[in-house]
Amino acid sequence: MHSVGKSWLLLSGFILFYVIYLLFGALIFSSIERPMEEKLRHELEVLREEFLNQSCVNAASLDRFLVHVIKASKYGVSALKNSSETSNWDLASSMFFANTLVTTVGYGHTSPLSDAGKAFSIFYALIGVPFTMLVLTACVQRLMYPLVLAPVNLLQHSGLQPRPATFVHFLLLLIVVVLCFFVAPAAVFTVMEVSWTFLDGIYFCFISLCTIGLGDFVPATQPGQKNRALYQVSVMVYLFVGLMMMYLLLRSFHKMADLHGLTTFLQLPRCEESDLDEEREPIVDGDSTPPYPKDKAASKPLDPGSQPSYSTINKS
Amino acid sequence: MHSVGKSWLLLSGFILFYVIYLLFGALIFSSIERPMEEKLRHELEVLREEFLNQSCVNAASLDRFLVHVIKASKYGVSALKNSSETSNWDLASSMFFANTLVTTVGYGHTSPLSDAGKAFSIFYALIGVPFTMLVLTACVQRLMYPLVLAPVNLLQHSGLQPRPATFVHFLLLLIVVVLCFFVAPAAVFTVMEVSWTFLDGIYFCFISLCTIGLGDFVPATQPGQKNRALYQVSVMVYLFVGLMMMYLLLRSFHKMADLHGLTTFLQLPRCEESDLDEEREPIVDGDSTPPYPKDKAASKPLDPGSQPSYSTINKS
Repeated sequence: MHSVGKSWLLLSGFILFYVIYLLFGALIFSSIERPMEEKLRHELEVLREEFLNQSCVNAASLDRFLVHVIKASKYGVSALKNSSETSNWDLASSMFFANTLVTTVGYGHTSPLSDAGKAFSIFYALIGVPFTMLVLTACVQRLMYPLVLAPVNLLQHSGLQPRPATFVHFLLLLIVVVLCFFVAPAAVFTVMEVSWTFLDGIYFCFISLCTIGLGDFVPATQPGQKNRALYQVSVMVYLFVGLMMMYLLLRSFHKMADLHGLTTFLQLPRCEESDLDEEREPIVDGDSTPPYPKDKAASKPLDPGSQPSYSTINKS
Repeated sequence: MHSVGKSWLLLSGFILFYVIYLLFGALIFSSIERPMEEKLRHELEVLREEFLNQSCVNAASLDRFLVHVIKASKYGVSALKNSSETSNWDLASSMFFANTLVTTVGYGHTSPLSDAGKAFSIFYALIGVPFTMLVLTACVQRLMYPLVLAPVNLLQHSGLQPRPATFVHFLLLLIVVVLCFFVAPAAVFTVMEVSWTFLDGIYFCFISLCTIGLGDFVPATQPGQKNRALYQVSVMVYLFVGLMMMYLLLRSFHKMADLHGLTTFLQLPRCEESDLDEEREPIVDGDSTPPYPKDKAASKPLDPGSQPSYSTINKS
């Protein structure tokens, strides 16, 4: 009973820290962004006044027009003269949208206008999200040997102990992933997208491969870009392979964490279920016998088996 | 070697089907949305012409103004007169934004304007996303007994066999989750948000709890809403508890799938690793001994341990 109390205390601590972390984030974001927002708001007001002064239109009719402009812009339709050429729903763009749905990135730079489109989005994601996760898993399973097991083995054969070997391997993999899936693509995006800085590129890669997908930076949405369809398909391939590598990196991190006892360090205490005779299910799924320290075979919160599965939140 | 070939064939099949699924989605989305988009584009052009005709402003200076209007609207800043009162970066709104970052929902209805904000977003999500997953896991661990194990046990004691018991339980849980986390919130949103239909509410709940977060519908963003901060905090709590329930539902699904042999049915063939003597790691993590059929203890692709972990894609 004492252990149960301790377990709930820890959970309360976690939730409290979560709320504090959100508040901390809120304070920082508020202090950084609020002045910027006010500056933008002020600039826009000045522009609006200037525009109203130089034209004979009144504020009310401008507002009536702007309501439509702003609403349309949310659906990716611009009121500008020169940008009405390319559709957001041609085949490549629609495929790009479908891809952001099933990978749960969801930029939202375009979104379905019609009720039928919304209903189909729900249906499409309901099947697509779990299926995408299945394909990603299948790919990662096949990459585990050449990219994780074989290199660690090689490092061990070259004289390293298992612990430093996994650490060195994880570090190398991390560097390779950061270079190939953050730095290099960011450099490419800086060239391809006129208005993006290198930080914008890194920010886009990070926000995308974390599946946050804010959608403030989306490639191939500028009017008049060359080979737009090919560019969109390339970004789709990048997203898919990138997500795969993020998963591989986490698997590799789990291996290292297990070996270094980090898992045990972060371990969540189990709840007692002594009154449950049948179906004595371990609270933590994937209660496995790891290839390394046998004494750590208890509950492993950092193991993929105990983490909320990616598809968890997705499959409904 | 034959089995390896078969395994790669299956993977190729998966990837092919994935591409076909994307193409299928693209075709449907394109056929549904393109006419809607063209209608919107046409309406906007007509409005633009009308506006230009009734004012003495020329097209070029209107475009110069609209560029700023559209850009600002992407950052959640409206050029309309009446909407300049509430900030997107007050404490509650910033907390809401921080929450959409760490849960990877990422609506993107507001996004950081400054480079400092972008850099902080990366840093914040790097710690926040794995931590959120840890808190979610800890909560779900404690809900497994009262909401999954105990009810299944009760159903078994009332005379049901294990298989129908888990099936009935999963169905009941699904109905409860759909009612409490989709239908009821959608009804509340329909009341709270003037412009939302019930389908919009359902669509918002689904897109949010799948962490897609397109951001075309975001609660508490209309100007002049009462108790905005309280409303935003309520939505945050809804998102957190909703994500928890989605995970619980998946865990429950896994239990049922294991028991019904669905896992074996969807099982991915393993790759052969016969040349690896030491560190013979199962390709599928969480290679556990399940409480049910012992013969299914091999690789379990539908087990959370083998699915790409939610935090996989998030932790970088």
